[in-house]
Amino acid sequence: MSPLIKLAVIPGDGIGPEVVAEAVKVLEAVTAADDVTFDATWFSLGAARFLETGDVLTDDDLAAIAGHDAILLGAVGGVPGDPRLANANIERGLLLKLRFSLDHYVNLRPSVLFPGVQSPLAAPGNVDFVVVREGTEGPYVGNGGAIRQGTAHEVANEVSVNTAFGVERVVRYAFAQAQGRPRRHLTLVHKTNVLVFAGSLWQRIVIAVAAEYPDVTVDYLHVDAATIFLVSDPSRFDVIVTDNLFGDILTDLAAAISGGIGLAASGNINPEGRFPSMFEPVHGSAPDIAGKQLADPTAAILSVVLLLEHLGLTDAAARVSAAVTADIVARAALGTPRSTSAVGDAIVTRLTD
Amino acid sequence: MSPLIKLAVIPGDGIGPEVVAEAVKVLEAVTAADDVTFDATWFSLGAARFLETGDVLTDDDLAAIAGHDAILLGAVGGVPGDPRLANANIERGLLLKLRFSLDHYVNLRPSVLFPGVQSPLAAPGNVDFVVVREGTEGPYVGNGGAIRQGTAHEVANEVSVNTAFGVERVVRYAFAQAQGRPRRHLTLVHKTNVLVFAGSLWQRIVIAVAAEYPDVTVDYLHVDAATIFLVSDPSRFDVIVTDNLFGDILTDLAAAISGGIGLAASGNINPEGRFPSMFEPVHGSAPDIAGKQLADPTAAILSVVLLLEHLGLTDAAARVSAAVTADIVARAALGTPRSTSAVGDAIVTRLTD
Ligand SMILES: CC(C)[C@H](C(=O)O)[C@@H](O)C(=O)O
Ligand SMILES: CC(C)[C@H](C(=O)O)[C@@H](O)C(=O)O
Repeated sequence: MSPLIKLAVIPGDGIGPEVVAEAVKVLEAVTAADDVTFDATWFSLGAARFLETGDVLTDDDLAAIAGHDAILLGAVGGVPGDPRLANANIERGLLLKLRFSLDHYVNLRPSVLFPGVQSPLAAPGNVDFVVVREGTEGPYVGNGGAIRQGTAHEVANEVSVNTAFGVERVVRYAFAQAQGRPRRHLTLVHKTNVLVFAGSLWQRIVIAVAAEYPDVTVDYLHVDAATIFLVSDPSRFDVIVTDNLFGDILTDLAAAISGGIGLAASGNINPEGRFPSMFEPVHGSAPDIAGKQLADPTAAILSVVLLLEHLGLTDAAARVSAAVTADIVARAALGTPRSTSAVGDAIVTRLTD
Repeated sequence: MSPLIKLAVIPGDGIGPEVVAEAVKVLEAVTAADDVTFDATWFSLGAARFLETGDVLTDDDLAAIAGHDAILLGAVGGVPGDPRLANANIERGLLLKLRFSLDHYVNLRPSVLFPGVQSPLAAPGNVDFVVVREGTEGPYVGNGGAIRQGTAHEVANEVSVNTAFGVERVVRYAFAQAQGRPRRHLTLVHKTNVLVFAGSLWQRIVIAVAAEYPDVTVDYLHVDAATIFLVSDPSRFDVIVTDNLFGDILTDLAAAISGGIGLAASGNINPEGRFPSMFEPVHGSAPDIAGKQLADPTAAILSVVLLLEHLGLTDAAARVSAAVTADIVARAALGTPRSTSAVGDAIVTRLTD
């Protein structure tokens, strides 16, 4: 009996469908010879769907998606400044709603500077770390409000909510990650000197959990200092654990120094598997280059590696990872840029050779 | 009658006293021939004072400081991890208390890559922008709290408070800055897609004030995207206006790409002059190198430039700026690093030559 994996595919907007097509192509190729089959259901969600129907994510959509084993997402978001989207907030209503509803409390974002890839840093050194970003708390909870809106007396508040429950589970995940890596080092990033209540909670929990991981070394950086080290000495990092907003900021910077957002993969993970985890490139929908086969599908394909790892298909994950790495190394020698599908095809060829 | 300027000097901890000594040396030298005298009162504040007396900043200290025309601060903060400072939070109790009490709603942080200075970026281009960071609102207000602290049911909240009054005044300041610069460009940085209430307030106010500055071009970046551009294309920035926390993060990154925190100056400004403004290097107290004449006083001396500009002593400001620039350019040719006081002396020599 060959295991059947139910995959929800959300291509989304802009370049999303193009990069997802390549990711699915690679997924099918790597499992073709294996005793496992992916059964994909495609969901039309995003700005385009909203403009057509007025829906961002219905309860039925959510229930249908939740019935799958994993989710692959391209990118969502319309053309910036489109007046018809002014009040839609597709990001909150779709992307964040999925992360929160499906309890994706780990947002896993590896940063690796692949051989031959150009970093904007003159001397990046060996960049190979992973950010474990909390995904269901912090300033992202949507706990804000305003009074006297539109007047000179407006007050607009945003509340960052942090719980021992929520912090402890993501910190435990981060320590387990650190334990499994050669350097076994974990850095907590926060702003404990200013956000004293949230910071104290994070710090106490990291100290408590650290006692269970005597072979993992731990240090702490304020978020501002962390940005300095990310450009002056990124090789110092191994595992970073941090809050939702700091993680958002640091992972874009991390992607930039590792050769750009075109290579940055991410997993929105519910480790216990109560809900399907969701894998997506860190990049956005880039409507300006959409439909032209100009987008780099590598980040989407690397997200497939995370998806396969999450499903325990480690052998397939390693094969995709090796094929992508080989393709990236070979890129330096290429003259002209390849189309989106040519990149996918090249990786499939390496997989099946 | 020669104008007398009452200057409060807070050398602080670690390398603070060393770098402040050079800043004061330069200040005295540049005004020696002028019709203006600085009358300095020295305040012993910081971790050392706390360890001696248990006081961080008394009401008397604050009243005395508030009676001055301007403040020069070195750096505050003890040795990280010193258990005697565990509950002190010198940053909140001293630095942030001064910024909030003296209504320093503009935190002005220029980023310039001086000729001959090494950036960690391979191709930084022409880096010359200024961050106008809000200083009295946002997540810095100290409006946090926790329940069930120390238990598995702890909830720790932090509230970001943003007002039309507070946002508008700093946005106006930023537009005025942009207007006075050759490129006349302003970038709002926020996270409007997630922090929808605070973000909407910032965005509406920027749009409203922009109407009064038709010759200033305006754009918007999410804070995560802004970090990417700071390493991939920093020359695109002219004036950045942003919230207190985003400004904290972006200005450390900006300092890093402009040759490091040793060159980053800042002004905590109350533009109307109801309270004295405070000028300080962005760097910390660096206790590990304190007392050894190893610290670079350039950031403190560049803070003197901002102080002189604020006081309307634009000629003196320009002279210090030119002397520092010339010194920085000459550094590339120097073999061995100079002592803290040697750097101050060299700049004084250029001033008086
Ligand atoms: C689109 C946006 C809501 C999202 C976030 O802030 O998490 C994005 O920046 C990301 O990092 O995945
Ligand atoms: C010391 C700390 C409270 C301060 C801040 O966060 O503002 C510092 O990082 C700065 O940027 O001046």
